[in-house]
Amino acid sequence: MSGAEPVRRRRGPGRPRQDEAEEGPGTQERIRLAAREVFAERGYDKTSVRGIAKVAGVDPALVHHYFGSKDDLFAAAIEVTMEPALVVPAVVGEGPDGIGERLARYFLGVWENPATRAPLLAVIRSALTHEAAAKVLRGLILRRVLERVAADLDVPEPTFRAELAASHLIGIAFVRYVVQIEPLASADPEEIVALVAPTLQRYLTEA
Amino acid sequence: MSGAEPVRRRRGPGRPRQDEAEEGPGTQERIRLAAREVFAERGYDKTSVRGIAKVAGVDPALVHHYFGSKDDLFAAAIEVTMEPALVVPAVVGEGPDGIGERLARYFLGVWENPATRAPLLAVIRSALTHEAAAKVLRGLILRRVLERVAADLDVPEPTFRAELAASHLIGIAFVRYVVQIEPLASADPEEIVALVAPTLQRYLTEA
Repeated sequence: MSGAEPVRRRRGPGRPRQDEAEEGPGTQERIRLAAREVFAERGYDKTSVRGIAKVAGVDPALVHHYFGSKDDLFAAAIEVTMEPALVVPAVVGEGPDGIGERLARYFLGVWENPATRAPLLAVIRSALTHEAAAKVLRGLILRRVLERVAADLDVPEPTFRAELAASHLIGIAFVRYVVQIEPLASADPEEIVALVAPTLQRYLTEA
Repeated sequence: MSGAEPVRRRRGPGRPRQDEAEEGPGTQERIRLAAREVFAERGYDKTSVRGIAKVAGVDPALVHHYFGSKDDLFAAAIEVTMEPALVVPAVVGEGPDGIGERLARYFLGVWENPATRAPLLAVIRSALTHEAAAKVLRGLILRRVLERVAADLDVPEPTFRAELAASHLIGIAFVRYVVQIEPLASADPEEIVALVAPTLQRYLTEA
């Protein structure tokens, strides 16, 4: 969005020729933002590189240059949405004491906030209905979150343990926020933390 | 499908008049089976009472007579699919000792079997993408499963506890079978039971 960009001279209606496509420091970000917008509006299946290029006002070849494939664009688009998950390794890395409670509180905090919850729900729904989206999400979560958390754990099979802890929290999110089954849907988050923290503590720290 | 049914006299092409519609002991079951078939093929949104009636070979008014609304039909259609869940109260009701392990084993057993897993996945996906389907599923699970399980528990807030246990198992199903993230996706079920059973035991039996 910022940065100097060459003046674009059109020869007539239609998109700019490739060598005249706007390019500059802000272009990659503009493409990423366009990708987020288009994926959110149209869903994974109905989004194309061409469609994203159009919204970004650039040549599709430039999009491929910066991002590669449609799946690379999807990963870049959801990365901002998944930022709360990407912070988890730092939360966990503070050390084993009280890790279960820290993780439970952090997770619920993200989901209790409508601003961070809504985009997460959208990404999850697309992953549930589009295998390609699921694959991107799976890779992102595994590489960026679970393996980093596992690196800080001192238990046998740390990635397995991290995933088990994650699955418990994911299940709570599903029941409480997606399907909204009572009484879990309206329970005081403190009640949930009180019961779940010892579970996570055991999974993440006890051999 | 069984039972004597009056001979249907057609006056010409087209569907039978309402008073000539086939009716007998097998009709309600035939409608239920037609509902399952149509919901599974077309999804919740594209299924109508008229469409189900056509497949069942009866008048739509007869469908309404037996089942009421489209949502009642959906509930009846998924009831067979949800039978494994409906058995849970019996599994739990055997008493508090070892209940965590019994529940974990039973749950994984259902999901490890492709024959019982596939229809569950289909119902869950429709609940995730159609609020009306989610509502039916929510009511079914709550009334028929969670509240019955809670009735046998000797803990404070038993429905909340039952739901927390359920959410853990649902999260495992999601990570292992829906999104299929390794290593949980390929882990030996015994490893999962060993870690999860004490968690469920605590949720369901410890004050």
